[in-house]
Amino acid sequence: MTGEGRIWTAGLAVIGDEILSGRTQDKNIGQVATWLNAQGIRLAEVRVVPDIEDRIVEAVDALRNRYDYCFTTGGIGPTHDDITVDAIAKALGVPVIIHPTARAILERYYADKGGLNEGRLRMARVPEGAELIENQMSGAPGIRLGNLFLMAGVPHITAGMLDALSGTLEGGRPLVSVTVGAFAPESEVAELLRQAEQSAEGISIGSYPFFKQGRVGSNFVVRSEDQGKASAVADELAGKLAELGYEPVTGGI
Amino acid sequence: MTGEGRIWTAGLAVIGDEILSGRTQDKNIGQVATWLNAQGIRLAEVRVVPDIEDRIVEAVDALRNRYDYCFTTGGIGPTHDDITVDAIAKALGVPVIIHPTARAILERYYADKGGLNEGRLRMARVPEGAELIENQMSGAPGIRLGNLFLMAGVPHITAGMLDALSGTLEGGRPLVSVTVGAFAPESEVAELLRQAEQSAEGISIGSYPFFKQGRVGSNFVVRSEDQGKASAVADELAGKLAELGYEPVTGGI
Repeated sequence: MTGEGRIWTAGLAVIGDEILSGRTQDKNIGQVATWLNAQGIRLAEVRVVPDIEDRIVEAVDALRNRYDYCFTTGGIGPTHDDITVDAIAKALGVPVIIHPTARAILERYYADKGGLNEGRLRMARVPEGAELIENQMSGAPGIRLGNLFLMAGVPHITAGMLDALSGTLEGGRPLVSVTVGAFAPESEVAELLRQAEQSAEGISIGSYPFFKQGRVGSNFVVRSEDQGKASAVADELAGKLAELGYEPVTGGI
Repeated sequence: MTGEGRIWTAGLAVIGDEILSGRTQDKNIGQVATWLNAQGIRLAEVRVVPDIEDRIVEAVDALRNRYDYCFTTGGIGPTHDDITVDAIAKALGVPVIIHPTARAILERYYADKGGLNEGRLRMARVPEGAELIENQMSGAPGIRLGNLFLMAGVPHITAGMLDALSGTLEGGRPLVSVTVGAFAPESEVAELLRQAEQSAEGISIGSYPFFKQGRVGSNFVVRSEDQGKASAVADELAGKLAELGYEPVTGGI
């Protein structure tokens, strides 16, 4: 597809034993998803894989071939369990080299912290052909190779790298969402929602139940690339909820 | 593999547009991972997929064929975007039926809440051949088919279903971890960690940097199925950190 209607997609590989063991609560899926939306790109799939080379290669290969962009978080630090760069180089069939600019950045960053050592120099290693993604937080840069973006796993460092990439990727129209909430059990308005979703092309409605203030309710999220269409469907849904005696709250509860 | 040394594995499919859009921060990966560890089963891979039938089928098929168990969260509620049951039935090549016990549970649960309606009855639909997973929180049960477990997406309901399954699955020895923390930048002790990991069979060491109390440090997590081995390697690592002038904190910082 080309032109205005093209939907841009991305896959994300979250790399790290600490997520799969439950030790660390992932925060990168949410922040990458939100950031991608703002770039007009949809997060279409996430895979969480351990620090095992073959598993990283397999996930990244699947995601980069299927979607417009592939992002990874994790495994680009200085220690023995940081193997993302080697895995990606293997997937691409290129050697790992020391990137001269990355080396210079690290030399500067560590100048008053004891200087470069073997571990720190590991963070200048990149698959041949890579460009760097700026890291204002902690020196060691992220890595870009074509449609592939390797970022840090520590969420605030990931956030800094996303900032550095903001506005640099080609995308489509951002997906907008309009939320209508009501103290209506979703099981009582399921048919209404189904009809509302079918009432217009290019919209989808998600239903998210909650329990608040001692009462059961739901937020209904109308998503579309067309703000006008999303608002119109949300307004109509709110009207029908009101007809059934539920007080609709635009913006959600 | 059989016997004591067998490693039991699981895959998890997190199903839901709300996770991929960034609207909802996932909490199920962490709680499923932690629960699996306690059952002696390792979470080996997670895939997050949208509310699209083909994508659910593909992820579940990949995970259930590759690992001992496959869990899903999300998409088993009463609304039009809850399509997990249909997707799984398609993947297994079986019809969707109304489970009589599930129907009876829902009739009882909704007796004083307006009774069953079309939306609520949707939650009694299961792929033919399914058993139920008890849900003490909100009536609608989870679904088990062989090595496949379909659970709710709302985290506290998922937790209740995990509780109901506790102790019922065959697993191996739980993976134990011993953490040693120090105000040591991981880049300064990378070589030490590599050597420690190679010092014993069947252990792995993860390194997780942090910034606390205005200082840079790391937690080093030694994982093994053998508690004695994990403790021995952690003790040795703590000794070496102390030799380098870093004060090790067993249990982590």
